[in-house]
Amino acid sequence: MVKIKINLKYNSYYIYLQHNIFDDIATFHKKYYTDCKAIIITDQNVKKYYLKKLTDRFSAKNITINAYSVLNGEKSKSFKSLESLAEKIIKKGINRNDIIYAFGGGVVGDLTGFLSSIILRGVKFIQIPTTLLSQVDSSVGGKTAINSKLGKNLIGTFFQPAAVFIDPNTLSTLPRKDLLAGYAEVVKYSLINDRVFFNWLNKHNKDNLSLVPKNILKIISTCVKKKAEIVKLDEKEKKTRMLLNLGHTFAHALENELNYKIRHGEAVSLGLLMAMKLSYNLGYAKINDFNLLENHLKSSKLPIKLKDLSNKKKWLSKNILKKMQTDKKSYKGNIRFILCKGIGATFIKNNIDKTIVKKTIEEFII
Amino acid sequence: MVKIKINLKYNSYYIYLQHNIFDDIATFHKKYYTDCKAIIITDQNVKKYYLKKLTDRFSAKNITINAYSVLNGEKSKSFKSLESLAEKIIKKGINRNDIIYAFGGGVVGDLTGFLSSIILRGVKFIQIPTTLLSQVDSSVGGKTAINSKLGKNLIGTFFQPAAVFIDPNTLSTLPRKDLLAGYAEVVKYSLINDRVFFNWLNKHNKDNLSLVPKNILKIISTCVKKKAEIVKLDEKEKKTRMLLNLGHTFAHALENELNYKIRHGEAVSLGLLMAMKLSYNLGYAKINDFNLLENHLKSSKLPIKLKDLSNKKKWLSKNILKKMQTDKKSYKGNIRFILCKGIGATFIKNNIDKTIVKKTIEEFII
Repeated sequence: MVKIKINLKYNSYYIYLQHNIFDDIATFHKKYYTDCKAIIITDQNVKKYYLKKLTDRFSAKNITINAYSVLNGEKSKSFKSLESLAEKIIKKGINRNDIIYAFGGGVVGDLTGFLSSIILRGVKFIQIPTTLLSQVDSSVGGKTAINSKLGKNLIGTFFQPAAVFIDPNTLSTLPRKDLLAGYAEVVKYSLINDRVFFNWLNKHNKDNLSLVPKNILKIISTCVKKKAEIVKLDEKEKKTRMLLNLGHTFAHALENELNYKIRHGEAVSLGLLMAMKLSYNLGYAKINDFNLLENHLKSSKLPIKLKDLSNKKKWLSKNILKKMQTDKKSYKGNIRFILCKGIGATFIKNNIDKTIVKKTIEEFII
Repeated sequence: MVKIKINLKYNSYYIYLQHNIFDDIATFHKKYYTDCKAIIITDQNVKKYYLKKLTDRFSAKNITINAYSVLNGEKSKSFKSLESLAEKIIKKGINRNDIIYAFGGGVVGDLTGFLSSIILRGVKFIQIPTTLLSQVDSSVGGKTAINSKLGKNLIGTFFQPAAVFIDPNTLSTLPRKDLLAGYAEVVKYSLINDRVFFNWLNKHNKDNLSLVPKNILKIISTCVKKKAEIVKLDEKEKKTRMLLNLGHTFAHALENELNYKIRHGEAVSLGLLMAMKLSYNLGYAKINDFNLLENHLKSSKLPIKLKDLSNKKKWLSKNILKKMQTDKKSYKGNIRFILCKGIGATFIKNNIDKTIVKKTIEEFII
């Protein structure tokens, strides 16, 4: 079992990573939460493949379970789902000692985390991420959210889980496109502060997503450790943690432009590349690093042009720019960017000339 | 100016109490939040009497203001209001440095506090309570909430304001019934740990709500100081803070039975008396203290029987008891009660015999 500590002032917790981890989860619950109900929130895909496998382990230990499933996809990160789940769970009888499990990908994790933070003013929750994206990124660090009509993740809380259990086996049923989308976040971690990791990813490009146990454990544990280090330094995203948003100011605007009909990771892939190009255009990064990144994403079959996200959409740089200005990370009307001094060296920059941002966007329309 | 510190591990803040305080609020904003917008949330009553008076002070200092009003009453503590406000505020362009003001009574304070805690994962907010109930109780301490269909305040967060500004002048336009309802919370504070304060209230009963400046300042500052002490000891309501719920397990059930069509304070008045009677029935309090309290509430023209809340409702003890069991304070199926060893001496008690609770409720039906 790989065990990684998220060290925080309060509410420190562990990430447990291992193939076939379900039985350990039930054991953990039985040990630490005797007589407390397990409230499981999942989506329809995970329900189909894994819910019974998980609940069987809980039932075998006589743990009371209430399970609820939401529709797949970003549309479930809404006030409507939040209200509906809250009312159902309250009606069924929850108390402050029960445990809520987020059993699914980023959508389920963000929604369930938010719900847990507001129901009875806060109930403990545990993440069981089932997608690559949620295993390497969104399940760790305590950001919870739903979407506003005007942008992604604009409503939510900082609320840390009590534990995170990751089972790479769940990736075996994940569609290839979702696996790829999650891989964009893996690349992000290498860009932030680890050129060696980027080179390793580049070298093993063909094997990275083959789910060879050794490789996938290295990928997940490397990303989670990186996230743990950053969250420890800056839980509430006052500064350092913003580095984790590399590519995301672009990505959120692109997702919004396409009404969230693409995968988050697909937008992140292009967002990373756009951030690198912006860094180059501003004189921070070398063109060689941009090319290295572009080739890596391309050979990974990830989007590198706006038309790769949608070739039907009429892309307009001014619309994308406008969306970027409603981002949470915007500051007094200015967009705050995470830029790169090349692969493995990110930094925060305010007050960037909007005409250069616009020009950069336009390079991806062609 | 009366200045009371709420001392917390993080996010300590001050309560400022004074007649004619609006100009001080604008000065405070200008001093500490230069270039940040003031987003004011209020209700229709407060809008009618005071909104312009407040915004004039902000405008005079060139502070940008966005003001929104919600309908009066508990119905505004809903997911619907929350979503509608969030979308409007985001659309208008909010950033993490702006300040949200809760300008109104308990409903506005609870809703606005909750909204502030979740919009962009948390934006600073300031309370300007305008009713007696919110000035002595709900604006201080960082509990925020909306109501579930199944009970009051079941969804919310702990989120401390950056400051609280109290102007007793706003009480002059408060309907007598609302003033009385707020007074029930004042009585609560005396019951919790201050028999001397109870005796003072009893002695000055005729003057308490006449809004004589000296008296009303004493009443508000005494209650706020008491709340400050308790919140300091136990911000997240693990134990001591539960004492502030004296009478509230009954009160929330009664309000829910009447679909929130009565004032919270009216339910609290009866809730306090029921808690004292339950304490007597369980052998903790003397009948003399029950009689003292009953006489005080009666002479204050506050409810002392269920029929005083509604003489149309067919009150059934089993229904009230059932509602009490979905309260947040219930623990593993049992109701957790705050009881009194007489006036000025409260304590927490779990696992009370439900038949005695039921019998106690029945004494108030007759």
